[in-house]
Amino acid sequence: MAEQSRVAPVAALFKSPLKAVNLGLPSFAANLAAAGAEVVQVDWRPPAGGDAAVLDALDRIDAGPIDVDAANKQAVDILLAAKPTLIDIGVAAEVIPGMTSTTILHSGPPVTWERMCGPMRGGVIGGLIYEGLANDRAEAEALAASGRITFAPCHGYGAVGPMAGIVTAKMPVWIFENAAFGNRAYATVNEGLGKVLRYGAFSDEVIARLRWIETDLYPVMKKALKRHGPIDMRSVIAQALQMGDEGHNRNRAGTSLIIRELAPTLVQLGEPVERIVRILEFLNANDHFFLNLSMPSCKCALDAARNVKGSSMIVAMARNGTDFGVQVSGLGDRWFTGPASMVEGLYLPGYSAADAAPDIGDSVITETAGIGGFCMAAAPAIVKFVGGAPQDAIAYTTRMYEITLAENGAYQIPALDFRGSPTGVDVRKVVETGILPVVNTGIAHKEPGVGMVGAGLVKPPRNCFRDAVLAFAEAYGAPPASSRSES
Amino acid sequence: MAEQSRVAPVAALFKSPLKAVNLGLPSFAANLAAAGAEVVQVDWRPPAGGDAAVLDALDRIDAGPIDVDAANKQAVDILLAAKPTLIDIGVAAEVIPGMTSTTILHSGPPVTWERMCGPMRGGVIGGLIYEGLANDRAEAEALAASGRITFAPCHGYGAVGPMAGIVTAKMPVWIFENAAFGNRAYATVNEGLGKVLRYGAFSDEVIARLRWIETDLYPVMKKALKRHGPIDMRSVIAQALQMGDEGHNRNRAGTSLIIRELAPTLVQLGEPVERIVRILEFLNANDHFFLNLSMPSCKCALDAARNVKGSSMIVAMARNGTDFGVQVSGLGDRWFTGPASMVEGLYLPGYSAADAAPDIGDSVITETAGIGGFCMAAAPAIVKFVGGAPQDAIAYTTRMYEITLAENGAYQIPALDFRGSPTGVDVRKVVETGILPVVNTGIAHKEPGVGMVGAGLVKPPRNCFRDAVLAFAEAYGAPPASSRSES
Repeated sequence: MAEQSRVAPVAALFKSPLKAVNLGLPSFAANLAAAGAEVVQVDWRPPAGGDAAVLDALDRIDAGPIDVDAANKQAVDILLAAKPTLIDIGVAAEVIPGMTSTTILHSGPPVTWERMCGPMRGGVIGGLIYEGLANDRAEAEALAASGRITFAPCHGYGAVGPMAGIVTAKMPVWIFENAAFGNRAYATVNEGLGKVLRYGAFSDEVIARLRWIETDLYPVMKKALKRHGPIDMRSVIAQALQMGDEGHNRNRAGTSLIIRELAPTLVQLGEPVERIVRILEFLNANDHFFLNLSMPSCKCALDAARNVKGSSMIVAMARNGTDFGVQVSGLGDRWFTGPASMVEGLYLPGYSAADAAPDIGDSVITETAGIGGFCMAAAPAIVKFVGGAPQDAIAYTTRMYEITLAENGAYQIPALDFRGSPTGVDVRKVVETGILPVVNTGIAHKEPGVGMVGAGLVKPPRNCFRDAVLAFAEAYGAPPASSRSES
Repeated sequence: MAEQSRVAPVAALFKSPLKAVNLGLPSFAANLAAAGAEVVQVDWRPPAGGDAAVLDALDRIDAGPIDVDAANKQAVDILLAAKPTLIDIGVAAEVIPGMTSTTILHSGPPVTWERMCGPMRGGVIGGLIYEGLANDRAEAEALAASGRITFAPCHGYGAVGPMAGIVTAKMPVWIFENAAFGNRAYATVNEGLGKVLRYGAFSDEVIARLRWIETDLYPVMKKALKRHGPIDMRSVIAQALQMGDEGHNRNRAGTSLIIRELAPTLVQLGEPVERIVRILEFLNANDHFFLNLSMPSCKCALDAARNVKGSSMIVAMARNGTDFGVQVSGLGDRWFTGPASMVEGLYLPGYSAADAAPDIGDSVITETAGIGGFCMAAAPAIVKFVGGAPQDAIAYTTRMYEITLAENGAYQIPALDFRGSPTGVDVRKVVETGILPVVNTGIAHKEPGVGMVGAGLVKPPRNCFRDAVLAFAEAYGAPPASSRSES
């Protein structure tokens, strides 16, 4: 009876008309269908695209002594528990540990002057002129190439900078504290759009604006923040996501909320009226003002989740216009890099893709923390800035749930029925699914001195995620099969 | 041959298995399906719910001498071309033509003191105390009942008021001009949420706030608007719709945009710092501040489209808490009324539906102009305030395209791929389709003196649309069949 029951279904199978289920390449299914067979096509791809080295690494990680899922839960819980708080504004060299008068911080992973892209060079030139270390472009280029300037990534100093991300000694920087864990983060004051230092422009108007930020905006904002008290940025970002922002390239709501919050305080400082008026007009004219507040909010949230042993959660993604880089919680400060991609997007009148520099900036810290491109479903109007249709925005966010570890209940997306934002990228999931993090971004002109030319979406290079997983397997995985058989 | 070709298809029909298409009641289709027949069910209802009088009226309108479609195009083109502009603020009795010191304007269609609901009575009591015409509730009630007060709808004076909509002589009112057509509209200053006059509260704090608006906010705003110049409200509303507002019960973005626009000017007026600070704090604390700007924007847009001969476009919907009323462009100032409905929604802690007054307020002017409930797809987060899910918000807006005449390209809805808002309700389409305009609203306590208890969605009474169509047929339709046969 038992024997019969095992055989009968197989026999029955061959008596009924055969139906096929095809996994993967649709052309196989098409052939069967053409031959008259009934076929169900399943959209399937081999994990990790069938990459044997990666599959081996993932197996070794699974077989290793560390419970990576538990470590990732610990890391993402730290990220979710973060309380990014704007507490003060200070001068970079005075408040950022390790900065000197000849340090220049830049966006992305480390890069030498020789390898820097045009807009980053432009930012460096402008920074040296602003610091009084050079009088013009030629002097600045000579000094930058002389070896007397220390170039270093913002990320290594607790800072983040959009686009070129240049931070020099005298620049005022917002000071953020993660109130849940005590760590700090820094970012300069957003200059507005168009001809600005972060897009590689360094004309007199750019330098003059930077000086005004230092002499006028900075002291007033310092007094204002002292009088007002700390600003809970998690609350402001949460509100902005209900108002069509995503915190990276759409920041009109966040900027508005900060203005209405600070305006009463600004009026009470006893400062000259004209100074306050110009500051309020500057804020009102710059809808990206909030970007330099959302970025360090994300940075201080993510930095607290660094160095969790055995965690494969990504704690930084960043680009310098030459390389795209990734850092993983369990792998310390090591960068895994690949070539910076070209951005697909919309161009300002008079510019085209031929003018564009590759992907640049630390602003992808927003995506790393689960907002920005990951929250585009909250900001359908952003497609007017970066291209695409509102349905694309929904699709981008929805796909990100497949490579993330948690949903952030504090950052809710109305259009997805208030689902929490997809948060905490697991580098294992990126290589396993082949789904790359979605990043939206501004586009800088490839030459120094020009500025912004557009905005769009960009795909990070795959190999940096692959390399990170291979290194993760080395650090935490079981020994390779070959060494296991030898032992 | 020709004969044969006419017969053959019919013969063929009866040789093949019969398939049924069922229109309307699904139970018929279910019976056929149960009997083994192949049935296609079509969701169909008879036009106008099969109401013979309405069908006759619609036929008479079609057969009449006026091209109603052309008239409606004219009316809705006026509505779409409107340029609502905030130009000034003034004292009601000084700027609203016809107002006297004993005039009290209220929301909705005309209503006597005797028929007024609780919150409107509360607003009248507060208004009389504010004006110094009564010292307390008892004196106010006696005066209101004495016949010495002239009660009239805001709508008849070019004004609109949310909830009770009380406007008294000394109250400051925003002055709007439709820059395309020159007509004006007025609304008081929004007091905030909770215990406020428009929700029927009249305690000392309510009166004190009204006095502060008169003595402090009014003169400062007058100077500010003079210095700043007119504000193009079409542009502000368009932006707010990209930022999750719908301009009726979600106004956080609009309020923010107005604050950031006016803040630099407010600082420059040379007013005492404490006065400016309190105004900025008042604005920042009241996300509904913008409602009293969006409402008169809609009012002055719609008023320009009044009295278009032969137009069946609705130019006003309004409720006084007792009656819901409708006015139609081609029918002058005549109100078509029905009983105000109860609101379905969310209640503040400690309150329930048992505490609620019926639907009240002129704020449905926003829906009449194509925003508010008609734009809920732009404001998914509003469901946290009025109930339902974000998909409902999309469905409400989508349905409104079936009863409207145009799409307003200036007011785009990101979630609907930037489709223009459904604009200009055709009263014929309402009765023909049975689809009622969707209205979201606050809920007032039914007793005078309490205030707001919740917010939700409300269905207008069907009969006012029916009555309007019957009257429209009288005014513009062909003579009734009976009189035609007699002539």
